[in-house]
Amino acid sequence: MVVSEHPPLRIALLGCGTVGSEVVRLLHSQADDLTARIGVPLELAGIAVRRAGRTRDLPVPADIFTTDPAALVARDDIDLVIEVVGGIEPARTWITTALKLGKSVVTANKALLAEDGPALHEAAAAGGSDLYYEAAVAGAIPLVRPLRESMQGDRVTRVMGIVNGTTNFILSSMDSTGAGFADALDEATALGYAEADPTADVEGFDAAAKAAILASLAFHTRVNAADVHREGITEVTAADVASAREMGCTVKLLCIAERRRDPAGGDSIGVRVHPAMIPRSHPLAGVGDAFNAVFVEAEAAGQLMFYGRGAGGAPTASAVLGDLVAVARNRITGARAPGESSYAALRVRPMGETLTRYHVSLDVADRAGVLAAVASAFSEHGVSISTVRQEGHGADAMLVIVTHVATDAALSGTVEALRHMEIVRDVVSVMRVEGEPSR
Amino acid sequence: MVVSEHPPLRIALLGCGTVGSEVVRLLHSQADDLTARIGVPLELAGIAVRRAGRTRDLPVPADIFTTDPAALVARDDIDLVIEVVGGIEPARTWITTALKLGKSVVTANKALLAEDGPALHEAAAAGGSDLYYEAAVAGAIPLVRPLRESMQGDRVTRVMGIVNGTTNFILSSMDSTGAGFADALDEATALGYAEADPTADVEGFDAAAKAAILASLAFHTRVNAADVHREGITEVTAADVASAREMGCTVKLLCIAERRRDPAGGDSIGVRVHPAMIPRSHPLAGVGDAFNAVFVEAEAAGQLMFYGRGAGGAPTASAVLGDLVAVARNRITGARAPGESSYAALRVRPMGETLTRYHVSLDVADRAGVLAAVASAFSEHGVSISTVRQEGHGADAMLVIVTHVATDAALSGTVEALRHMEIVRDVVSVMRVEGEPSR
Repeated sequence: MVVSEHPPLRIALLGCGTVGSEVVRLLHSQADDLTARIGVPLELAGIAVRRAGRTRDLPVPADIFTTDPAALVARDDIDLVIEVVGGIEPARTWITTALKLGKSVVTANKALLAEDGPALHEAAAAGGSDLYYEAAVAGAIPLVRPLRESMQGDRVTRVMGIVNGTTNFILSSMDSTGAGFADALDEATALGYAEADPTADVEGFDAAAKAAILASLAFHTRVNAADVHREGITEVTAADVASAREMGCTVKLLCIAERRRDPAGGDSIGVRVHPAMIPRSHPLAGVGDAFNAVFVEAEAAGQLMFYGRGAGGAPTASAVLGDLVAVARNRITGARAPGESSYAALRVRPMGETLTRYHVSLDVADRAGVLAAVASAFSEHGVSISTVRQEGHGADAMLVIVTHVATDAALSGTVEALRHMEIVRDVVSVMRVEGEPSR
Repeated sequence: MVVSEHPPLRIALLGCGTVGSEVVRLLHSQADDLTARIGVPLELAGIAVRRAGRTRDLPVPADIFTTDPAALVARDDIDLVIEVVGGIEPARTWITTALKLGKSVVTANKALLAEDGPALHEAAAAGGSDLYYEAAVAGAIPLVRPLRESMQGDRVTRVMGIVNGTTNFILSSMDSTGAGFADALDEATALGYAEADPTADVEGFDAAAKAAILASLAFHTRVNAADVHREGITEVTAADVASAREMGCTVKLLCIAERRRDPAGGDSIGVRVHPAMIPRSHPLAGVGDAFNAVFVEAEAAGQLMFYGRGAGGAPTASAVLGDLVAVARNRITGARAPGESSYAALRVRPMGETLTRYHVSLDVADRAGVLAAVASAFSEHGVSISTVRQEGHGADAMLVIVTHVATDAALSGTVEALRHMEIVRDVVSVMRVEGEPSR
């Protein structure tokens, strides 16, 4: 690429925490390579931080820092903006302003994209600028670009994966040590895998935001965080994990987005985040600790899997810089990436219509006819039972039931009915079962 | 995207075998989606085939077929060209002509890209056209695009994977049944996994071409097929596979491209394709049958893995159509993808400089001092032994040795010396060992 006539591209970095600091380091250490790949040099022109005085061990002059991100974004000499602050506001205002001013934006802000993605895309279209966000989903793993570009000639039917490292660390730990949720969370916090306020991770908000972004891209349909059925892992007990183990499964927090033909014709999609038991032979079962892995299934391509580090400063910065090179190249050649694609506008199914399987553990009375009564409750709701296992005797008798596929509404109706049966002393555990063994 | 003023983009398809037929079917079945995604309709204007009269069950008019691909490519009304014929000539002439005429090309032709990629990229630059080739490597798995775009802000250090389904099927079969190479090849041929002439697959030519393409992209350096050290699987014996099994390994045909800092300073790369033993706990060990999987390691991103169907009509067509959408979008907006990136021009190391480990099985004389003599042969070549296992007794005595990492030159020098030792009756098996257990 011979575009040496072009002046350097000037970058504003909003946020200088774990990811931002790595972005600064990579911009410095890879400067020559980035220049060769883009055709013109990149120049870090300003870094917006909350506190300017703080000492930072970064290869940039001290006067580059500012506490006024709005002014930085609006500066005439800024060509490209990187946002790694997170949260809805004021990030939304900064990004929208930049895009409308024709400055391309690279962001890792999953919450904002899942909340208000269409408005950001509109701002980009209005300003003729680019909005890139590979780092918003699954850290360094290329997922946004493959969905946005590679799969464009195919029909994606399903996206299923592990997209939150914190909960995966906690569940892996519960599985290997037998610990309960609270202890495993404490361990994750002590090791730096969980934040001081772990709500966004353990309640599934983070995974739900990523699910919304992936579903929007996969199905060419606007999906926001509120469209995603979300259940976190705080209710997962040591008994659930032990029960999963007994049936050759492990518990994972899954993000699942599925396209399906409706009985009435036309396609609809369902998007959900919840803990589920998956067979230990499933490739996702082996994804440990802070790794992420996502399956993408498409009609022609078949099953694809993407695996790697889903978080952390350096992996996330790698994704940010990959996007930065793309928007920089576009800026120089006057090109613009395809914007939002929401033409399909598929119906988003409520959770009740989702087809899934349940694993149910019941503490039942020690009495003849219990199994028959429980089985009737399932069949009355149109739910077919796959396996029943009786554990213990007398006062400790437990029934462990795994169903065939049914609608989530029928399954939860069954559980509700079981809760009201006199012979059921307690519904000990209810969890969905996903994933046939594969490979 | 509102570009409805633009006339349909007209496509020439060169080749209508397994992949070409699927391209035709997808263009037909996905027509509405493709139009929505690109902004203008695609129109299949001509299909070049060897024999025009043949009956084909495809949703296109009969008069679309031609036996004159050169004339089709040159037609004024053709905007985009898809080449799925394969081979060096005449594909090279057709593609070069198209690119120089400003028609963008999507190709699955790994052999041509590995042989003459730079000339094709130059033709594209001269014509202001795009050259896309996601389908040339690992079928439906997005690999070219992630390397060409997603990893541009990072430094790739290693690419390692299984990129040939035929050999993977054969080796998987040898591993599970204990069969020898010839029998496993017969089975693969009978099941349609191997072609009538399996040379390109079993001798590693196909994998070497893919390795050259991946290394060029990963390291911004021109690498052609001749730069790749290539060993096929025809010499892999049932005894090798059994020996691998005994040490907890399995045999895979690996494609490995590595960047390394030279002792003298400066970086160099090594690119190789050969069978190797890998631990069964390694993720690549579980990649069965006709699947492909590739690890990409980069300084900031860490380890990424991409997995999916590496061949077959529909998966390959999915990759072709993904590229087709990209070149169509570029055509409409007047953009052009970044061309060849070879600025790094790193030295390609000869195989002798590669750092690797060897597994060596020796049939040795039943005599005192044998182990000492063999160990001396290794140490004289500067090769350190990791483990020695003695198997059998008397006339059947075998020594199985696994080394630490050493240069390939030192290791092959050691093996050569062993072959000339009187106490070594036979060097039964020599194979490289790769991949630490991971996850």
